[in-house]
Amino acid sequence: MFAIAITLLALDLRVPHVDHVTAGGLARAILDEWPTYFAFVLSFATILIMWINHHARMAWVQRVDGLLVFSNGLVLLMIAALAFPTALVGEYLTGSGGRTAVATYALFVLGTSGAWNIFMLALKPERGLLRPEVPLDAVATTQRRVRLGFVFYAVIAGLALVNAYLGLGLLVAMWCFWGRTAYHALNMSARLHNPLYDDPVDATPLRSAP
Amino acid sequence: MFAIAITLLALDLRVPHVDHVTAGGLARAILDEWPTYFAFVLSFATILIMWINHHARMAWVQRVDGLLVFSNGLVLLMIAALAFPTALVGEYLTGSGGRTAVATYALFVLGTSGAWNIFMLALKPERGLLRPEVPLDAVATTQRRVRLGFVFYAVIAGLALVNAYLGLGLLVAMWCFWGRTAYHALNMSARLHNPLYDDPVDATPLRSAP
Amino acid sequence: MFAIAITLLALDLRVPHVDHVTAGGLARAILDEWPTYFAFVLSFATILIMWINHHARMAWVQRVDGLLVFSNGLVLLMIAALAFPTALVGEYLTGSGGRTAVATYALFVLGTSGAWNIFMLALKPERGLLRPEVPLDAVATTQRRVRLGFVFYAVIAGLALVNAYLGLGLLVAMWCFWGRTAYHALNMSARLHNPLYDDPVDATPLRSAP
Amino acid sequence: MFAIAITLLALDLRVPHVDHVTAGGLARAILDEWPTYFAFVLSFATILIMWINHHARMAWVQRVDGLLVFSNGLVLLMIAALAFPTALVGEYLTGSGGRTAVATYALFVLGTSGAWNIFMLALKPERGLLRPEVPLDAVATTQRRVRLGFVFYAVIAGLALVNAYLGLGLLVAMWCFWGRTAYHALNMSARLHNPLYDDPVDATPLRSAP
Repeated sequence: MFAIAITLLALDLRVPHVDHVTAGGLARAILDEWPTYFAFVLSFATILIMWINHHARMAWVQRVDGLLVFSNGLVLLMIAALAFPTALVGEYLTGSGGRTAVATYALFVLGTSGAWNIFMLALKPERGLLRPEVPLDAVATTQRRVRLGFVFYAVIAGLALVNAYLGLGLLVAMWCFWGRTAYHALNMSARLHNPLYDDPVDATPLRSAP
Repeated sequence: MFAIAITLLALDLRVPHVDHVTAGGLARAILDEWPTYFAFVLSFATILIMWINHHARMAWVQRVDGLLVFSNGLVLLMIAALAFPTALVGEYLTGSGGRTAVATYALFVLGTSGAWNIFMLALKPERGLLRPEVPLDAVATTQRRVRLGFVFYAVIAGLALVNAYLGLGLLVAMWCFWGRTAYHALNMSARLHNPLYDDPVDATPLRSAP
Repeated sequence: MFAIAITLLALDLRVPHVDHVTAGGLARAILDEWPTYFAFVLSFATILIMWINHHARMAWVQRVDGLLVFSNGLVLLMIAALAFPTALVGEYLTGSGGRTAVATYALFVLGTSGAWNIFMLALKPERGLLRPEVPLDAVATTQRRVRLGFVFYAVIAGLALVNAYLGLGLLVAMWCFWGRTAYHALNMSARLHNPLYDDPVDATPLRSAP
Repeated sequence: MFAIAITLLALDLRVPHVDHVTAGGLARAILDEWPTYFAFVLSFATILIMWINHHARMAWVQRVDGLLVFSNGLVLLMIAALAFPTALVGEYLTGSGGRTAVATYALFVLGTSGAWNIFMLALKPERGLLRPEVPLDAVATTQRRVRLGFVFYAVIAGLALVNAYLGLGLLVAMWCFWGRTAYHALNMSARLHNPLYDDPVDATPLRSAP
């Protein structure tokens, strides 16, 4: 589902319609659409990082119950819907609708963050869905971050109403933070499984071996 | 296929085209599209619940035959087609075409329910496709519910012609019922597999462990 | 890929645009789009049956080589492209462009059949890619049918230029034949695995058991 | 993701809108869209070959780290985005915007090549992510080719500004080369696994056996 949502984002990279085509006029028309490309890359990175994190969270899970499946569905709904504010920012960023567009984008990310918070509630260790070997402090750290993220996005949505580019910059900064966290988590997990460290734990390849 | 159909729904969340853009004007234009968002959420929930139920039904199956595969294909066809009445409700709900739009939506759900009924015929225990450990009363309960659902949707399609919002409210009520049923089924399955209950049965995680 | 192509077909079920909306006017506008629904169902059935057959053919395969992978890619290309003549038939069937639209559709199916023929060449038993237990006469029967299909589609493309509905009827008849063949093949495979027949062969469920 | 991106390309095969429809006029309008079909086939082949190569590279991988996952994400981003210059070439190839369209296409392929180069950095043997049995000279050969490809695409992007068809021809030539390489690699891998050669190595079928 992440794979589908992330690929569908490209559908909003629409070809510009130029009336009297010249080589230079078409080039300018393509460059003029930069907010669309920017929004595409931002949302692609957003969904990619959530995909990596979702994968890591699901690796904790031993069994599922109603709350987990439905909160997971809510996360997927928000991720599928992200294409909408992405197109909005692509179309209205540079004009006088820019603040509205970015604030709407931030509100959708806020909603996604809310869905993640419910999802993390479902993963509370005392609910008994996690594998016994999952370290409890990792769960607590993740839960705290997701909670804090919600507060940040609420603030960003407000600030976007003051200045569109400020809002957008803060959204980028947030995803740099999440990306960095995911990057280090992946490295740590790779190091633990590295045979150079003589770790007997089985490797977790991206795809299972044939 | 469920994953694809559910994600494609987001393609109908189209960006509003505003002629003279102002921050407030764009915000109003976005809010004015609420029927589109409502239809998106309704259809997303519809397909999500059918996805969960389909997953649970396929877990019963030990082997497939022609009727099962083709009735399964019919369910998939109806689910793929649901994007059409969803867009219809999103565009025409608030105007004088509202009743037609909701009745069409209900007719598509009725068709989907018909496909599920044929699918449940294929799963009849005497046809020998189910795993031996599937409890026969669970099969009978599901078959009765799916049959009853068909009657309800036929009535709802008729009532939608009288009042669009009545029809829509009844569709939401139906999915609250199906959602609640799926939620409890997931919880029961989780509890049975919970090690706290000392159950030796293998857990069924959402994704297989690495 | 089949799952994606089959679901994307629904994107051409476009909502009709009505200028002065009334309940009856919208209903008529929806019904007037019947060629679109017809083309959707035809192409959905087409891809579904090719999906089932492709699945059955891939179950024969023990290893892949360049010709198999690239001819498989050609089949996928044609299946992805089928959305184009589907939309063409949906839009132009009833007018004076009907014959052109159906003939184009038949030409695309002819191309798909050509791709299948190359794919079947790659599956020739003497090329050493098939499992040893695959019955050689089943391979020969399939190869003969796929070859004959190519001739039939060439004739149908010609006849569609004479009469659009004749061409469409013949395409439907062809898929009834392929569908019937796939249906019986699935039933035979189910019967062989049926425990009532005391067959020790492992069942082949649609999804692997948890 | 490759499967989704490759199928979504078909969405740009749009039905021509003809004002006064005649059988011949519609046929001409369909044929006039040949640049769209050409661009579709070119991008389909491009993504198909990258898919095969990606599959072969991932088979080398024993564990993943941050750089591998994120560079992989960058490759996916560029592949998803390829639909944009594909549509551009389809719409503007034959007019005076042709050079701009093809140069933009080449720039996107150049960006994709850049992403592959970063991906290959992540696969450097000394980083410890590869299976021990991966032959080091195969890694070096691939890395050299991917590096050389980047230089070639930069040159092609420049030449496309001189002549659109020259640029397009060179892009086709490049993919003939990559396709030929992938074809031979698949054949070699099939031969090594061929039981006629008494090789005890397990076969790697396209899909796992039931």
